[in-house]
Amino acid sequence: MYRTNTCGELRLCNAGQQVTLSGWVQKARKMGGMTFIDLRDRYGITQLVVDGGASSELVELASSVGREWVLQVVGTVVERQSKNPKMETGEIEISVSEIKVLNKANTPPFTIEDESDGGEELRAKYRYLDLRRNPLQKALKLRHQIAHQVRNFLNDQNFLEIETPYLIKSTPEGARDFVVPSRMNPGQFYALPQSPQTFKQLLMVAGYDRYFQIVRCFRDEDLRADRQPEFTQIDCEMAFVEQEDVLNTFEDLMRTLFKNVLNVDIPASIPRMSWYDAMDYYGSDKPDIRFDMRICEITSLVQGFGFSVFDSVEYVGAINVTGGASYTRKQTDELTEWVKRPQVGAKGLVYIKYNEDGSIKSSIDKFYTPEQLQVVLSKAGAQKGDMLLVLCGAKRKTQNMLGVLRIEMGNRLGLRDPFNFAPLWVVDFPLVEWDDETGRFYAMHHPFTAPKPEHLELFYSDKKEDLERVCANAYDFVLNGTELGGGSIRIHEAEMQQRMFEVLGISKEDAEYKFGFIINAFKFGAPPHGGLAFGFDRICALFGGQETIRDYIAFPKNNQGRDVMIDSPSKIDDTQMEELFLESTFNENQLK
Amino acid sequence: MYRTNTCGELRLCNAGQQVTLSGWVQKARKMGGMTFIDLRDRYGITQLVVDGGASSELVELASSVGREWVLQVVGTVVERQSKNPKMETGEIEISVSEIKVLNKANTPPFTIEDESDGGEELRAKYRYLDLRRNPLQKALKLRHQIAHQVRNFLNDQNFLEIETPYLIKSTPEGARDFVVPSRMNPGQFYALPQSPQTFKQLLMVAGYDRYFQIVRCFRDEDLRADRQPEFTQIDCEMAFVEQEDVLNTFEDLMRTLFKNVLNVDIPASIPRMSWYDAMDYYGSDKPDIRFDMRICEITSLVQGFGFSVFDSVEYVGAINVTGGASYTRKQTDELTEWVKRPQVGAKGLVYIKYNEDGSIKSSIDKFYTPEQLQVVLSKAGAQKGDMLLVLCGAKRKTQNMLGVLRIEMGNRLGLRDPFNFAPLWVVDFPLVEWDDETGRFYAMHHPFTAPKPEHLELFYSDKKEDLERVCANAYDFVLNGTELGGGSIRIHEAEMQQRMFEVLGISKEDAEYKFGFIINAFKFGAPPHGGLAFGFDRICALFGGQETIRDYIAFPKNNQGRDVMIDSPSKIDDTQMEELFLESTFNENQLK
Repeated sequence: MYRTNTCGELRLCNAGQQVTLSGWVQKARKMGGMTFIDLRDRYGITQLVVDGGASSELVELASSVGREWVLQVVGTVVERQSKNPKMETGEIEISVSEIKVLNKANTPPFTIEDESDGGEELRAKYRYLDLRRNPLQKALKLRHQIAHQVRNFLNDQNFLEIETPYLIKSTPEGARDFVVPSRMNPGQFYALPQSPQTFKQLLMVAGYDRYFQIVRCFRDEDLRADRQPEFTQIDCEMAFVEQEDVLNTFEDLMRTLFKNVLNVDIPASIPRMSWYDAMDYYGSDKPDIRFDMRICEITSLVQGFGFSVFDSVEYVGAINVTGGASYTRKQTDELTEWVKRPQVGAKGLVYIKYNEDGSIKSSIDKFYTPEQLQVVLSKAGAQKGDMLLVLCGAKRKTQNMLGVLRIEMGNRLGLRDPFNFAPLWVVDFPLVEWDDETGRFYAMHHPFTAPKPEHLELFYSDKKEDLERVCANAYDFVLNGTELGGGSIRIHEAEMQQRMFEVLGISKEDAEYKFGFIINAFKFGAPPHGGLAFGFDRICALFGGQETIRDYIAFPKNNQGRDVMIDSPSKIDDTQMEELFLESTFNENQLK
Repeated sequence: MYRTNTCGELRLCNAGQQVTLSGWVQKARKMGGMTFIDLRDRYGITQLVVDGGASSELVELASSVGREWVLQVVGTVVERQSKNPKMETGEIEISVSEIKVLNKANTPPFTIEDESDGGEELRAKYRYLDLRRNPLQKALKLRHQIAHQVRNFLNDQNFLEIETPYLIKSTPEGARDFVVPSRMNPGQFYALPQSPQTFKQLLMVAGYDRYFQIVRCFRDEDLRADRQPEFTQIDCEMAFVEQEDVLNTFEDLMRTLFKNVLNVDIPASIPRMSWYDAMDYYGSDKPDIRFDMRICEITSLVQGFGFSVFDSVEYVGAINVTGGASYTRKQTDELTEWVKRPQVGAKGLVYIKYNEDGSIKSSIDKFYTPEQLQVVLSKAGAQKGDMLLVLCGAKRKTQNMLGVLRIEMGNRLGLRDPFNFAPLWVVDFPLVEWDDETGRFYAMHHPFTAPKPEHLELFYSDKKEDLERVCANAYDFVLNGTELGGGSIRIHEAEMQQRMFEVLGISKEDAEYKFGFIINAFKFGAPPHGGLAFGFDRICALFGGQETIRDYIAFPKNNQGRDVMIDSPSKIDDTQMEELFLESTFNENQLK
């Protein structure tokens, strides 16, 4: 062992002990005849001191060390003259008698501090140096702790962690698969799993009852911000359960995580909201309920007064900005520009201010009397000093824009403290949604989600409008406006599964080819079952008070799906291509 | 919830309680006017009884249920008249008042019993039914328990579980990589990791100190028996440690596993054996030390007496078969045939029997006097009644054959009880081994293993014979003749790593292209570090008393790397190929 203690461990009560420490030089400085070195490891920082009375070799060596050198030092713990209350080891220092340089270090390309001076690209290239920084060490430690707590909780609840294969079968329904050519089966490919969905259902058929797995999943999507081609799920499934059982089990899990990891108490019962209410009142299937500011439909209150913009649309809705009456013209103009950006896509923004003196000022004053506007203000619950922001257009699209505007106003008003945690279940999702472009239904959750028993008649109807009304016992766990997980009660009957594929326009042959094994499995005694999956990376990020997941993954990829540290993906040898019976049709010039 | 209790839970003390159970029909039978149904779930089997006094609907339903149907039943716990002491629930049965068929089942293609009547291929195709069998349920539960114990132990020891990426870079050194074409980076490929070796070393450079991960690894090898293209490792690495620290830490881990999972005590200190001794005395780098029967070199004792077979070879060695003198001619002939099979490859077998009456009988009697043979017997420690089996040829090759023969004799003599656990560390491996075919050195462990500090001079020598003598601080954990894990102290200096690549005949350019990131990382303050990886599948199998890993993996692949249940690998859509800029050069006719 290269050390007797870590750099985060020694306290005043250790004074007088001879110790050996190993670690990295955080910084070194000379003061008078003394050299001070801050030695760092995963556990903390301890100050070393080499005083003028030491041998000249030692003094020389101490003054030669550079940032990030790796040292082993022997010395005695002594009480500091000037204590540093900000450091956990700040009451002591090590009076050094021996230094051994375990490894020298080039000067790092950026500072290894809480706030680094390195740009994102540079830090990605030297990820192993970036990972030395405190915020990242804390992030990965948090990740470990959460995983450990999850496993302990689920183990205590009789769940078994069962590993499912990574080399599976390509089933191009949903996102794009990564594929893996098989050398032993030439011309054929495995696929990497987008989730272990079918395998966990087969485990239920196999009688395993309570399954979980913290498992990597893969999606070959064009990467939007904060998406990774590989990501980790907490994947769970239970047999002989109804929706209520699943929700209760995983509420308990989340409650335990919040308590044991963050020492935060979340409500004894997490609120539930139907998907329809979420869309109507928050313009989002993942409402941030840390603040109210619900969307209020005012269509009937503003139509028929001759304002053609409102008269011609399906829907008019408003949010109430508390204290917004004091916004200047410049501010409302800026907000108007903000909603007109392509990311939001509104055509314009109407405001209605309810001034402190009771007067009303709006951008539609010439079309409405104050009395007519007063009705709108009342409906939206505006108080004196508030301001309504109004958008109009097609219903869901407008609600969605209002939802985006609501989040923006929440940010601007400081209503979105990352350490205020407001969990929510969104329930009663539609089973399928129609896509105009391809002229078919898509599964809202996935093709294995069961319709609600009370909607079975609609499910077997041939009418599009009936199918659109079918709801599922599907549920999402939402935290602070982010979907952290979701699941459903599954289909467990072969015949119903076949009907689902039919609804989705998947031919019998195609369904048989892609999902034959699971339809077949359902014929041999499948129990009722359901489950869910949490996005583990995102749980870690939110628990850490961050919105982006990248710092909670040890070795993430960039937006082009590249690992710039190892420079991957890369070309492979011709012999590898030949063994796989593959040729690339890609011509580099195509890119130029 | 579909049940109040599981099928393994109810006891006499529950008599009188009304309960609801759900599960599968193990079997149903009629006796007199009564119908008995054994209802099974993961937790056990409970007997249901529908007596003649029940409603005719219930009686009819009960008598119509088939094997593997899924039922939900309501009834009362009653004391059995004829108790079954072999069943944990054997003192009670459920007097059924209600049955609900949750799902019917086709007749399973094989019996769901401890010993199934289904062939391997059939059971693989219906893996979800095979997984219902008790031995497999126990195997996967054992696997879960071991993983859980590993995680708890390592967490308690301050190890962090850190996930490393699955989409990495192809580095064709060692086994063949599975590769993954990148759509976003056309013409380029990721590789699936054979192990997270370089990443865990980078985590040490990054200061994480104690890392572990239970992680999937991938090797595109031609599959020998009991190899899987994807397998699971317990992967560990520590910084600021020497070999002794690593061995102690993981001895403690294994001791904890044996105790907590199997309630078995293994020695307080696990024996250690050098690689050279393992080869010399056991003809194997993974000796089974449950029994002695060590290989004894007798070259000098048998050469020079005119027996040209022995005189012309490098090496003559023997093993002593206790009680073997009673072997008949037929038995020794059969053994001779056995060693001559291509799997062993010996040219012949010499025996020397030391009869109970003190006489000596051998197959080389005409070349040696009894006195000369007596010297051999004494050297090999043979007692009256024993028999030596002798092989000769090139040294290592012959030792290897003797090792194989030793294992066979151990099996025949019943010396290899799977529940007698004899762990062993094999240490002091050579750093590199020469391959005549390619005319270059290969790393015995892997290219990141450090030479022993006392062998550094040899390591920098240009002479082949010097390099062959370099030893590494590398170690394998061996249990009952199976290598369960291995590791080493790593190189942590860029210059030494470059020298290692040079020794391995990897050009500077090639090393830079493939491993540049790690050589570079070593320049920024790499700590001394080392670690090891255990084969998790194999640990599970051995803990379960089995030699093959297949039943300890939920969804294994067959010897062609195929998952016959989901029929994978398979062809992918043309559009997928086009998006990946790939064409297959494989012509189906090539196979015909």
